[in-house]
Amino acid sequence: MNEPTLTPAVVIGTGLVGASVGAALTAAGVEVHLIDAVSSHARVAASRGGGVLEPIDPGTVRLVVVAVPPAQLAEVIADALQTYAKATITDVGSVKGTVLVDLRARGVSLARYVGSHPMAGSQRVGPLTARADLFEDRTWVITPHDTSRAKAVLTVHALARACGARIVSMGATHHDEAVAQVSHLPQLMSSLTASRLNEVPDEHLNLAGQGLRDVTRIAGSDPRLWTQIISANSEAVRAELEAVRDALNDLLDGWGDPEALRRFLAAGRQGTRAIPGKHGLGGVQYAQVVVTIPDAPGALARLFADIEAAGVNVEDVRIEHDPAREVGYLAVQVTKPVARSLENAMIEAGWTLRPAEAL
Amino acid sequence: MNEPTLTPAVVIGTGLVGASVGAALTAAGVEVHLIDAVSSHARVAASRGGGVLEPIDPGTVRLVVVAVPPAQLAEVIADALQTYAKATITDVGSVKGTVLVDLRARGVSLARYVGSHPMAGSQRVGPLTARADLFEDRTWVITPHDTSRAKAVLTVHALARACGARIVSMGATHHDEAVAQVSHLPQLMSSLTASRLNEVPDEHLNLAGQGLRDVTRIAGSDPRLWTQIISANSEAVRAELEAVRDALNDLLDGWGDPEALRRFLAAGRQGTRAIPGKHGLGGVQYAQVVVTIPDAPGALARLFADIEAAGVNVEDVRIEHDPAREVGYLAVQVTKPVARSLENAMIEAGWTLRPAEAL
Repeated sequence: MNEPTLTPAVVIGTGLVGASVGAALTAAGVEVHLIDAVSSHARVAASRGGGVLEPIDPGTVRLVVVAVPPAQLAEVIADALQTYAKATITDVGSVKGTVLVDLRARGVSLARYVGSHPMAGSQRVGPLTARADLFEDRTWVITPHDTSRAKAVLTVHALARACGARIVSMGATHHDEAVAQVSHLPQLMSSLTASRLNEVPDEHLNLAGQGLRDVTRIAGSDPRLWTQIISANSEAVRAELEAVRDALNDLLDGWGDPEALRRFLAAGRQGTRAIPGKHGLGGVQYAQVVVTIPDAPGALARLFADIEAAGVNVEDVRIEHDPAREVGYLAVQVTKPVARSLENAMIEAGWTLRPAEAL
Repeated sequence: MNEPTLTPAVVIGTGLVGASVGAALTAAGVEVHLIDAVSSHARVAASRGGGVLEPIDPGTVRLVVVAVPPAQLAEVIADALQTYAKATITDVGSVKGTVLVDLRARGVSLARYVGSHPMAGSQRVGPLTARADLFEDRTWVITPHDTSRAKAVLTVHALARACGARIVSMGATHHDEAVAQVSHLPQLMSSLTASRLNEVPDEHLNLAGQGLRDVTRIAGSDPRLWTQIISANSEAVRAELEAVRDALNDLLDGWGDPEALRRFLAAGRQGTRAIPGKHGLGGVQYAQVVVTIPDAPGALARLFADIEAAGVNVEDVRIEHDPAREVGYLAVQVTKPVARSLENAMIEAGWTLRPAEAL
């Protein structure tokens, strides 16, 4: 097959994703020119192998990757369509539909624009953490629209392939519904749970266990970034929230009926089993062995050396801290058949075991 | 001070908590008699040092600890009040108010009954995992009621002290409101989020990241046990759910206003900061270094040995699996000042770093 040519390419916006795209393309032999409103970011990205800073004749550019914050996407894409008259333009934003609507409202031809969303490293952590293999074997969603020309679509496919990603094709609305379900709704549910804690007396919070910490962890994310993301996917997220409100109303309407509560809790457990597990195998049940660890450098290394000596394969680990104690716990997940032998090996090696957590 | 005498004591129900109470009391020199409706459980508990199986003259017993499932508590406590005519009776159930109401309805005198709730190991994992130090430095909530006699209250204090726990005293209703806030509501919010996944096509779930897994983890718990717990705390949990419904309605009413959304998300982040952190110090900010790990025995031990060689203190770790790849990632949390040097040390030792997760 005749692979579309990507070189020379321009990357606009050199945060983690933009700089990593630049590095991956550079590693694939593409000539990459970096542009950022903050010139020091572009310089850092260039120093990390993301590309060069020299200007280029816009008429010769084949591919432009727009990697700016959500609120600026449409304007920068529209501008790029004008400036780079022959290039395919894509973006890497985490919401696709609103950008398309905004671009259509501007009346520009979108034949050369195809949106995309690499599912990796969308945190705003800057070009310093950029790396050429950020997208390797990750999902890269490509969202062609009604008027995308074939050449543009194939060019974005070639971009994702050059970055080592696995391509998933879906329409913008479809994509936005999917991320509303698996990413944006959970974010809001975490915030909803966490915001209740502002009403809770400190002494009650001393009764909190690991469960509360897990449910509320992502509520600690940057509110400004998430305001942009969710605002850009407003309609799909609203539909999800309304479905949750319906489920919550059902739960409250049936309150006091243990069988209704059990069905609700069972549906929740069923839902967790739908999430693909390790290596895509859902539903494998693990046992947990919890070991007390002294809070000092080296303790974990000794502990893992002893776990290795026990010859078991660790499926997951988590460190739990007890606010009342000067120790932590290492919760080690292993397959059920080996849990007992791991427990015995840990005890023999002098470690103290603990059950996982209070309810 | 004249310490109340606990010996001889009876433990009814030899799951993890009951058997561990027996082991802690035995270690403290108390004569403990074990009773369980499933006699093999009592035998296992006895073999783990939880006490003896020989029957005892009920009139001589000083302390009875009832550690049966929530739905059976009131009946077993009422029976114990009759059977052990001079003993102080306590229970270790995770909800306190409904038991009290149920006991009052039975018309028995409750002068010798004082409820309690040790905040440790309430999972139903059986006597095999029992240990004498389960409650050491853990919070043990003691819930005296209006007609508890001083001697009974002091006896339960002595029980908690003998088990090495830290005593917190509060009324039953107060306790139940606190656990509704920090334990039961988060459980239901996790289930609410997870139950939505039953409506999500499998291909959308392939776009899921660690955030969804965290929010929904505790939704995987046993629905029958949680039906009992939440049913026993129905009123307090309902109030929490209604507050969440109000907040959800507010969020939906202001939908489309980015400033309202930002305030909502900021309130969520604020709430996460209210949770006591490691060793009771809230609000410490950590940086995360994510390392690719081959999925084989020994890889983690080598990795932790290299982390130890780097001389940094690990605050938290988490293993993340990518369903699409035959590798996992170890996310290591360290204090911000040492993150960069850990990154460099990991790269020098030949490990591959990765950013934390997709949004």
